Amino acid sequence: MVAMVGGGQLARMTHQAAIALGQSLRILATGPDESAPLVAADVRLGDHRDLAALRDLAEGATVVTFDHEHVPTEHLRALVEAGARVAPGPDALVHAQDKLVMRRGMAAAGEPQPAWAEVATAGDIAAFAGRHGWPVVLKTPRGGYDGRGVFVVGDEAEAGDLLAHVSPLLAEERVTMVRELAVQVARSPFGQAAVWPVVETVQRGGINVEVLVPAPGLDDDSATAAQELAIRIADRLGVVGVLAVELFETADGVLVNELAMRPHNSGHWTIEGSRTSQFEQHLRAVLDYPLGATDATAPVVVMANVLGGAASAEGWDGPGLDERVHHFMAHWPDVKLHWYGKGQRPGRKLGHVTALGTDPDEVRGRAVAAARYLADGVVDPAFAFDADH
Amino acid sequence: MVAMVGGGQLARMTHQAAIALGQSLRILATGPDESAPLVAADVRLGDHRDLAALRDLAEGATVVTFDHEHVPTEHLRALVEAGARVAPGPDALVHAQDKLVMRRGMAAAGEPQPAWAEVATAGDIAAFAGRHGWPVVLKTPRGGYDGRGVFVVGDEAEAGDLLAHVSPLLAEERVTMVRELAVQVARSPFGQAAVWPVVETVQRGGINVEVLVPAPGLDDDSATAAQELAIRIADRLGVVGVLAVELFETADGVLVNELAMRPHNSGHWTIEGSRTSQFEQHLRAVLDYPLGATDATAPVVVMANVLGGAASAEGWDGPGLDERVHHFMAHWPDVKLHWYGKGQRPGRKLGHVTALGTDPDEVRGRAVAAARYLADGVVDPAFAFDADH
Repeated sequence: MVAMVGGGQLARMTHQAAIALGQSLRILATGPDESAPLVAADVRLGDHRDLAALRDLAEGATVVTFDHEHVPTEHLRALVEAGARVAPGPDALVHAQDKLVMRRGMAAAGEPQPAWAEVATAGDIAAFAGRHGWPVVLKTPRGGYDGRGVFVVGDEAEAGDLLAHVSPLLAEERVTMVRELAVQVARSPFGQAAVWPVVETVQRGGINVEVLVPAPGLDDDSATAAQELAIRIADRLGVVGVLAVELFETADGVLVNELAMRPHNSGHWTIEGSRTSQFEQHLRAVLDYPLGATDATAPVVVMANVLGGAASAEGWDGPGLDERVHHFMAHWPDVKLHWYGKGQRPGRKLGHVTALGTDPDEVRGRAVAAARYLADGVVDPAFAFDADH
Repeated sequence: MVAMVGGGQLARMTHQAAIALGQSLRILATGPDESAPLVAADVRLGDHRDLAALRDLAEGATVVTFDHEHVPTEHLRALVEAGARVAPGPDALVHAQDKLVMRRGMAAAGEPQPAWAEVATAGDIAAFAGRHGWPVVLKTPRGGYDGRGVFVVGDEAEAGDLLAHVSPLLAEERVTMVRELAVQVARSPFGQAAVWPVVETVQRGGINVEVLVPAPGLDDDSATAAQELAIRIADRLGVVGVLAVELFETADGVLVNELAMRPHNSGHWTIEGSRTSQFEQHLRAVLDYPLGATDATAPVVVMANVLGGAASAEGWDGPGLDERVHHFMAHWPDVKLHWYGKGQRPGRKLGHVTALGTDPDEVRGRAVAAARYLADGVVDPAFAFDADH
């Protein structure tokens, strides 16, 4: 039995995959109304920062894994010392938990990344800007996600204000990028690795809103190089489970942006779009089963997040959620819905949709129009909304 | 929230589909170790023949539906009278519960079926055999499944022995058939219908062991006629949910064998092989949502059941289940596993596997070899088992 720390949508979708493998996920959630505890049989309520709760979760489990990075590293080490199997292990996972550790690791490995420095004073930041220019990107080493914990500062005074609240920080040069890419690889304790196609991740306000598969216009050599980069990182860090490598594409090639060692938003498309989903593959990897085939099931796949929008705001008087789901299903009978069971709130990731096909523009248009209709209750004028859909 | 009567693998896989729709199935199971209660959050333990348990299940549910046909019809009527939505409704479902009612219904509709008669005495059966020949197929009108409740008798004495135990019986001519086919259709209360491709169902000992999609060599006109037959039956009986029509293919066309009004073994291939699975479609139909697209996702799909075999028998000293799953995953990384979480027992449906591809023989060979390896722990000599797989 696999135990997973965290009760969000990643645990929810991992539980779906576990069912097919004859498993049932045991989940540590902070409340009964989170996405995963709503649908799973074996739920423990507790805090992921509480070692006693983690020990209880691990008791009798084949392996402990994660739907987020927020478990204190020392607790993970304590679990391992007590004999629990933890996957990914603490020495790997810390590279997804702490961005300074990750930057040092990538530097030691000689992997391409933005210029960076650990900074503790406004003077440090000014010196960094002297070498790489303003503005400077500043990141809290731990705890950030979906754009939180990332700041862009234009001068030394702004930098000083930030350091008054949190120190040390990671400073990074602001990269001139073409777009963001991501590549996912799964690795088993046995050392088997399986990689998916490179995808383009489209961001809005620091939050991933669309994933385009395969990354449009990426040439074969660049795609292979990015896949090899991901395999190399997984191997060097000893990752067990799924690793997502977020990349900046620049005029001179790709740079490593961030790492995640769990199922990741950039891989939701694999549920329908790959012979093996990231959720099944993560379970196969942490259980040390042989990995599944990662062939795409269609020439083009697009995933669009449904973020709480106009229809989640106070005072909304348009069609309610159930009515929107009706219209969505009627208009897009071939777009697949994944709804996370959460309460509606503006900006919240409520679900995602996946469209498959052959023409990149058509597939993207279909996915995005469907997601926006679910989020905002209105039809995006940029996309046709008629009986042809 | 959808409530489902029955906690077997059909409820288990329906729960998986419910998760994606933002739902969580409420399940009435007879024990906590059945397939579905092992993985679902909302489980009621009770007997499906107990009206109080059914009323408790229905309380607060949007609709009550089924993973089997064994709920007494009068209890269904009582639920409806008390204001519950039951889908399919009792007047439709009785055609899947009672084979005599089904035969009368098909006769009234003028649909093709084997010659049949209701028989209460050995003399009745002899008279029927006088018109249609021995042997005669005798079926208990209620309670049969997977070949149970079906008898083939060669003379009047055998027939009399059977009638001493159960009466009345349904007598049917023994049809000279080419093979068995099945076609599934979903119908919503709104009257929308969506049909999947016609499949061939391969039986062994009265139990379905393989499903070949599409039915090999079936010409387009015959396939369309079978799909129209299924839609006509669903419409006439007012089915809500998924209807499986099991057919005998004869030299003169198809004959209706049996009806099932729930997700069905002949539709497990739809999880990977159709844009909308039978489990999702059943939920969409009973919730009165618009139905999903039923396009196939590959030219050829084959589902093979994993029935408890040699490796489930007492004294088995070959590779254990976990070792077999390892080898299965290593040899067939592109064959999808669905394991039901049941204890192993010879003859029991423990799971199924699905293979997709383009060449019917290759795909079937892959699925069948994988299923037999999981069941029997040995490699079928009829199929290659090498690094190419």
